[in-house]
Amino acid sequence: MSDINFEHMTEYAKQFAGLTPEREEILKSLAPVIVPRLSKITDAFYGTLSTIKEASPFLEGRIDVLKQTHLRWLTSLFSGTYDSEYTKAMHRVGDVHVKVKLPVEFMAGGTTLIGDLLLADLDELFRDDPKARTDAVGAVNAILGFSLIIMQQSFQDSSLHAELEKFLKITGMSRALFNNLAAAYR
Amino acid sequence: MSDINFEHMTEYAKQFAGLTPEREEILKSLAPVIVPRLSKITDAFYGTLSTIKEASPFLEGRIDVLKQTHLRWLTSLFSGTYDSEYTKAMHRVGDVHVKVKLPVEFMAGGTTLIGDLLLADLDELFRDDPKARTDAVGAVNAILGFSLIIMQQSFQDSSLHAELEKFLKITGMSRALFNNLAAAYR
Repeated sequence: MSDINFEHMTEYAKQFAGLTPEREEILKSLAPVIVPRLSKITDAFYGTLSTIKEASPFLEGRIDVLKQTHLRWLTSLFSGTYDSEYTKAMHRVGDVHVKVKLPVEFMAGGTTLIGDLLLADLDELFRDDPKARTDAVGAVNAILGFSLIIMQQSFQDSSLHAELEKFLKITGMSRALFNNLAAAYR
Repeated sequence: MSDINFEHMTEYAKQFAGLTPEREEILKSLAPVIVPRLSKITDAFYGTLSTIKEASPFLEGRIDVLKQTHLRWLTSLFSGTYDSEYTKAMHRVGDVHVKVKLPVEFMAGGTTLIGDLLLADLDELFRDDPKARTDAVGAVNAILGFSLIIMQQSFQDSSLHAELEKFLKITGMSRALFNNLAAAYR
């Protein structure tokens, strides 16, 4: 993992997600109004998750700890700083998701659900200020997309890495032999 | 792939994405106002993609064909019918993305970009109708999330399958031998 260029990954994901410097400023400016609402949003998020049968094995007995981590992350969405350190942190989340064997769809599913809750809140907050609302909706969509892009890149890398480990274990083949064969095959 | 329960996958992804029967109706009701705008949204989508260096190898010489496919899919988001046939179609898209070696982040990246464009349009269309706007934003977020969830499930399955194929080719191991070893290992 140490050879990843997180600066490049950050710029690339920002382009895709439309996370511009203007939107980074908007996210920061939203903090005073939106951060006080994030605890309620976290409760609603886990409330919905707990109705999904496939999610329950990941929640049982852990929901309070999960809520704390989730709230910290949600709060960081409005910090205004989305540099390679933020990217590294999101990248670790993707890795951890593979290690705890979380199904891949939980990332897009979770992001959609958070988007649903945040967009509804922004719509209510800025009901009478169309310009602020448009700006806020675009910025929140961008930071959620940015975070998801990074998580999925590391989830994919970690999944393929874990799959290779599995092959090596099953076949009893050493990594050195596999690497030699792979080099010859190319 | 034939043993996938698409009915179950559909219900599961709908729960995660918050795609309720009410929102399905809302999406259908949006068609007359939003469908005429989708061609412009498709142009804007490929306009942004073409500024991303990593995307250009997938666009060169194919942009007109891609735009047609994309517009057909965008239009289907407002058909009102999101059954197991829709799920199967999105599942195939995930498979095809693996076959053409599209990087995993293009799916979340593309969805974020389309969300950006659609949400801005809805905001403009329903500027003076807060209830309709809230409903439309929630429904569009849900169908985009739903589609992404399905694509990523199949992308993940196809990636791991392709990785096994690669391993068998590199090691010269037969599938039968690998399956026997895997059964013994479990």
